[in-house]
Amino acid sequence: MANEHTLDCIIGIGNRSLEILEPETGFVSWARLMALFKRLLTKACDHGIDDPRKMFHCLKVGAALTIVSLFYYIRLLYDGFGGNALWALMTVVVVFEYTVGGTLYKSLNRIGATTLAGFLALGSHWIASQAGHRFEPVIMEISLFVIALVTTLSRFIPVVKARYDYGCTIFILTYGLVLVSGYRVEKLMDVAMQRLSTIMIGTFLCIIISILVCPIWAGIELHLLIACNMDKLANSLESCVAEYFSDGDEESKKRLQDYRFVLSSKASEESMAEFARWEPAHGPFGFKHPWKNYIKVGSSLRSCAYCIETLVSCLDSRHQVPETIRNHLRASCLSLSSSSSNVIRVLSTTVSSMTRSNQTDNVIKEMKDAVQESQNNLKTLSGILIRSHEEQVMKYELQDIIPLVTFVSLLIEISSRIEGGIVKTVEELAHSAEFEQSEDEMDLPMAHVGSKIVGKEENMIALQRV
Amino acid sequence: MANEHTLDCIIGIGNRSLEILEPETGFVSWARLMALFKRLLTKACDHGIDDPRKMFHCLKVGAALTIVSLFYYIRLLYDGFGGNALWALMTVVVVFEYTVGGTLYKSLNRIGATTLAGFLALGSHWIASQAGHRFEPVIMEISLFVIALVTTLSRFIPVVKARYDYGCTIFILTYGLVLVSGYRVEKLMDVAMQRLSTIMIGTFLCIIISILVCPIWAGIELHLLIACNMDKLANSLESCVAEYFSDGDEESKKRLQDYRFVLSSKASEESMAEFARWEPAHGPFGFKHPWKNYIKVGSSLRSCAYCIETLVSCLDSRHQVPETIRNHLRASCLSLSSSSSNVIRVLSTTVSSMTRSNQTDNVIKEMKDAVQESQNNLKTLSGILIRSHEEQVMKYELQDIIPLVTFVSLLIEISSRIEGGIVKTVEELAHSAEFEQSEDEMDLPMAHVGSKIVGKEENMIALQRV
Repeated sequence: MANEHTLDCIIGIGNRSLEILEPETGFVSWARLMALFKRLLTKACDHGIDDPRKMFHCLKVGAALTIVSLFYYIRLLYDGFGGNALWALMTVVVVFEYTVGGTLYKSLNRIGATTLAGFLALGSHWIASQAGHRFEPVIMEISLFVIALVTTLSRFIPVVKARYDYGCTIFILTYGLVLVSGYRVEKLMDVAMQRLSTIMIGTFLCIIISILVCPIWAGIELHLLIACNMDKLANSLESCVAEYFSDGDEESKKRLQDYRFVLSSKASEESMAEFARWEPAHGPFGFKHPWKNYIKVGSSLRSCAYCIETLVSCLDSRHQVPETIRNHLRASCLSLSSSSSNVIRVLSTTVSSMTRSNQTDNVIKEMKDAVQESQNNLKTLSGILIRSHEEQVMKYELQDIIPLVTFVSLLIEISSRIEGGIVKTVEELAHSAEFEQSEDEMDLPMAHVGSKIVGKEENMIALQRV
Repeated sequence: MANEHTLDCIIGIGNRSLEILEPETGFVSWARLMALFKRLLTKACDHGIDDPRKMFHCLKVGAALTIVSLFYYIRLLYDGFGGNALWALMTVVVVFEYTVGGTLYKSLNRIGATTLAGFLALGSHWIASQAGHRFEPVIMEISLFVIALVTTLSRFIPVVKARYDYGCTIFILTYGLVLVSGYRVEKLMDVAMQRLSTIMIGTFLCIIISILVCPIWAGIELHLLIACNMDKLANSLESCVAEYFSDGDEESKKRLQDYRFVLSSKASEESMAEFARWEPAHGPFGFKHPWKNYIKVGSSLRSCAYCIETLVSCLDSRHQVPETIRNHLRASCLSLSSSSSNVIRVLSTTVSSMTRSNQTDNVIKEMKDAVQESQNNLKTLSGILIRSHEEQVMKYELQDIIPLVTFVSLLIEISSRIEGGIVKTVEELAHSAEFEQSEDEMDLPMAHVGSKIVGKEENMIALQRV
């Protein structure tokens, strides 16, 4: 259950609000409804204050809606499109997403699917009309059934689901609407074109506002999330080992559970990588930035996090190990954990600054040396056991040291996962994204992505709570 | 990266289809478009054949759409509602989901949000109209802005996001549409009522078809998914230990990776639990069935899966351990793994049959005994080390046995997670859902949920690929 932080958070909040949010709690009085509304409002405002970017997003949605409805009031759209002008408003409501990538994904899906389905429906309508008035509805019904069937089925294909799910809905929708309208409305072509153009007005408004006003790029979010998760992993690892050797403070106790963010961020990473694909070049990211490499880095982080989760559960048995024996391995373990964390942190900087650090090879070498030292120290435990048996002064048994041996083995396994997983995937990312070689060691790593990094940690935490 | 099965699957398929699905691959010829279409169709049909339930779902969507458009053709809806009849068709397209719960979630959200927003918009319109023609648009614009702002902000609250996200979209949408129409259309009340009634026709059609024709209940899916994941965990655990002691066959090699399903099914579990909340009583599940307990069981399974992931990575170092020493612990480890797997399997049967098994206490006791035996065996290793040192016949060192000690420690940790996690959460579930006590040991466990269990494994695999 250690990994379910986000979930616990959701369930936790869920339980607290349940009394008033549950639909099945019986009699709903006016006072209760008001209390619910007040509570919702307070909570929503708290969220807005917690993360100003959320507030900006909401202001942007409000502004886009107001602008599109203004068109309507000042007769600009209405005179041109009549009742169809409503589609522009509708489009704004459904396509405006939190990130630029999300908005683009929905916008392009919507425009593409509407165009395609519109033409297809016009074609079907023409074919059906050739068959005479009697068979026309039959042919159209059959075509609608087949289109709905095939499109719904294709939504089960993972790649379609990930990239064109919304497009599939709009495709069936538009096909149905145009086909059915076609039977009644004379100027069918006009209807189709009006629908398309109002949709385009809505989507362009959304795209422009979402790109120009305080844009939230899915790519940057993903980029920061991965770097931030690396730091969290390093924190957890260091804290866990410090705790084991009773070397931790209050701060380290708090950081101990940071790895849980890594365990629960898989879904966010995947959806952001999908959205990032739709984004144009922005900041340091080109159009073909290898977003799928971030997913690979994320996977390697999670692979480490599984091991850290097991490592953390070793903390319970630390007091079974005699103090002397624990102290014997203390220095080498602390050095291993700090060098492993260092490797992760250097890689995190590599990712966030998009610059290969010259330190990488050094810190990896340090980590390998620390692994070697820990292994050597483990070997000497053999001698201690045998001496303690021969001299009978203070008798240690194997079972006294088993928890420690397990702990150290896991620590070594973690460093091997860092080397074989994180180092490798970050190296691949650096290669595909053509990261530059850092020239100066003193180069501040965060400078490249610039001001967007401000409040990185807080944003990420807020991000994962969504 | 061990956990990313679903993802790999997506990326894998993605890469294979990329050449034809990528929008940025340059010139799109007619032949290519046809090839893409053919490929999509083939893949979609494969999916339909793989899992007949998907095919049924698509047939249901097609049927619902055809029925609702028939209304339109035979003038029944058209005469009553005019152009607004299109909303019925639109509703069918957007609310028909794979599971009954999903359809109900969207339907009830849609009806609730439309009603609420409709009345609110009528109220705002009335207030604005009192302010005179000059201020009317200003007041309405401001109200639209505020409503959009607050609703969008409240979508960031996790419980609202999980349960009322779709409702929020529809709320803003309807409010905007009715408000803006209100400025133009005279018979505003009529428009609002027509929109509501056509939406209700659409949703009722969807609900009826999705419940009456081959229903796919989110509750049953979740129920089976959890039971199936337990079996998979047991398989992996058993296979891993068998492989370690070179006792595995081809079948066990295949099952080794089964735990990955558990790692990657968090999102499915959560969304199904959310949908299941909306479902009426069905089969053995009452209206207030404790679905959130399944989430807790799922978390405890994942906690075990993390440990099993680490255990599997121990396989690489098994040949470092001298054969004699490995054989020394072989019997007790195999017995521990089989008794732990037994506990999981008995609990899986408890969940799937909704009947507390009389065997539970026995198998837990067996597992505890096996843990004790393994611990005792570990202790005797101490003697072997010392004897080998004293007699100098065949010298073993501590480092020879460290991988084995780690392996056994992890195995013991897994059984403690089974006892403290899975047993406890299943017990809670059994208590909340009031599982019956099994009377007869020979009671076939799967009988209760009946025919729905047929093809359980296959369905689950298909389910996780979506």
